[in-house]
Amino acid sequence: MTAKSVKKSAAKPQRIVAQSKHVMFNRVAFIGIGHIGASMALAMRRAGLVGSIIACARKPKTRKTALKLKIVDEVTADYGTAVKGADLVVIATPIGTNGAIAKAIAPHLKSGAIVTDVGSVKQAVIAAVAPHIPKGVDFVPGHPLAGTEHSGPEAGFAELFQGRWVLLTPLPRYSAKAVKKIAEMWRLMGAKVDTMQAAHHDKVLAITSHLPHLIAYTAVGTATDLASDLRQEVIEFSASGFRDFTRVAASDPVMWRDIFLNNREAVLEILQRFNEDLTALQRAIRKGDGQTLEDLFTRTRAIRRGIIDAKQA
Amino acid sequence: MTAKSVKKSAAKPQRIVAQSKHVMFNRVAFIGIGHIGASMALAMRRAGLVGSIIACARKPKTRKTALKLKIVDEVTADYGTAVKGADLVVIATPIGTNGAIAKAIAPHLKSGAIVTDVGSVKQAVIAAVAPHIPKGVDFVPGHPLAGTEHSGPEAGFAELFQGRWVLLTPLPRYSAKAVKKIAEMWRLMGAKVDTMQAAHHDKVLAITSHLPHLIAYTAVGTATDLASDLRQEVIEFSASGFRDFTRVAASDPVMWRDIFLNNREAVLEILQRFNEDLTALQRAIRKGDGQTLEDLFTRTRAIRRGIIDAKQA
Repeated sequence: MTAKSVKKSAAKPQRIVAQSKHVMFNRVAFIGIGHIGASMALAMRRAGLVGSIIACARKPKTRKTALKLKIVDEVTADYGTAVKGADLVVIATPIGTNGAIAKAIAPHLKSGAIVTDVGSVKQAVIAAVAPHIPKGVDFVPGHPLAGTEHSGPEAGFAELFQGRWVLLTPLPRYSAKAVKKIAEMWRLMGAKVDTMQAAHHDKVLAITSHLPHLIAYTAVGTATDLASDLRQEVIEFSASGFRDFTRVAASDPVMWRDIFLNNREAVLEILQRFNEDLTALQRAIRKGDGQTLEDLFTRTRAIRRGIIDAKQA
Repeated sequence: MTAKSVKKSAAKPQRIVAQSKHVMFNRVAFIGIGHIGASMALAMRRAGLVGSIIACARKPKTRKTALKLKIVDEVTADYGTAVKGADLVVIATPIGTNGAIAKAIAPHLKSGAIVTDVGSVKQAVIAAVAPHIPKGVDFVPGHPLAGTEHSGPEAGFAELFQGRWVLLTPLPRYSAKAVKKIAEMWRLMGAKVDTMQAAHHDKVLAITSHLPHLIAYTAVGTATDLASDLRQEVIEFSASGFRDFTRVAASDPVMWRDIFLNNREAVLEILQRFNEDLTALQRAIRKGDGQTLEDLFTRTRAIRRGIIDAKQA
């Protein structure tokens, strides 16, 4: 399949960055152009980091939207067409697909290219992708801690990564120069960058992200099973706490299915601890043990203060 | 003890509403002047609903702040002094104290006065307060679904109730006119008002508010028990979901202790359902059952859409 070009003359001027002192990649290919991919493309463009951008997407509607909104210059449904000649390839699909994608793009990757990803789990993605990466190509696993509950290219915006963390989990077998380049790219897009071991990343994220999502999905699921009149009132009076949970539980179902399936061990471990703590609290309520409740509720305030001090609130 | 007056001449002009077509209560007494009480006092004042306001608070610091910020006209530590001559008495303390407060103020209540409260649990508050309400006084149990994670009179602001729900759980033994008056008062303060049975209120709030808080407190508590290096990273990278939980889990410890102790039955029932659902999800993750996960995550999106449609998002 041939890439379909958007007429350059039709593009908004601020989106065309032909030349810039910051151009880092002449050609970038996105495999998947949803909420994160589209936001990256827009942020790269705004920072003047790229020459041209092509996106590969399975659904015709996604391709059409990405072109129409001028998020990318070209679209294709073909992996080979997408990555051909690309200096940077960004895999931005639900992580369950990453192994098959790596296998499909591998023969077409340009020598000297960098492959990166945005997956929320790093060990599983590395295990699925790295074996397919050919000699002469660098793979830099990455994870921007950013996103909203919205999906699709139409939910993309260039400011998504502003002030947010991007965690890189580099592997010793690939060049340090490639890691440095990807870190620099994210910084120019407004993000803060940290690097860590993939296993450590998966443990931290299990606590900060995967457990909260799992709990929110469960609590909202419990509410969906209520009798319909009660459910209507839960919706109406959601502002008293439940609303925050529903926002979290509105996140992309396939993306999150893949996260839980691919970070199983770390998620189950922290879930086990959470369950023990919840059982203890349940017992305190049943026994009317106010001191235990008050002690915990006082301790948790301190964590919030830590977050405010870390300017993450 | 005599009430201490703030010099009227020192008050900001916009806070003095001597006469207004809306004046509903010549004298209002707040028992407790924390985040909610202070916000109510400011909102009443802004709407021109009150003549003078007195607040009764146990802590000297609270009394000093309430006076200094001109939230009220007078302060006292004495219940009798507070409610003497008041047309409206608002009990706005953690609900565990409400029974003792009702008993203490009862002999001093003016005939024809209305007593209302703002407690998050209604059955327990009614059971604690109603027996002490003397003949000739009306009691209108109420609950504004509003508040932030901040505490104290300094956290009060007049706009807190704007567009938010206030649930009243009136009792047939008191006059319908008093209920109408309290409903009207809240509406003039910008709130939406609904009435329901106390038992039903407690069940709905157990789901929309008490369960989310319990879960958030637990999850943040689980994180506080982590090794300190991991805990630091959880704080740093909290933006990926955990942060919303910490905000909820920073709410007032004593207030929430009392809520759980006083809505035990409804909280334990919904917690039981939540636990069953969480166990099922845990099993799905362990077994790698992606379909179950995706099905749930797709269902929960619908609830979020309902909340957006109900304009509560």
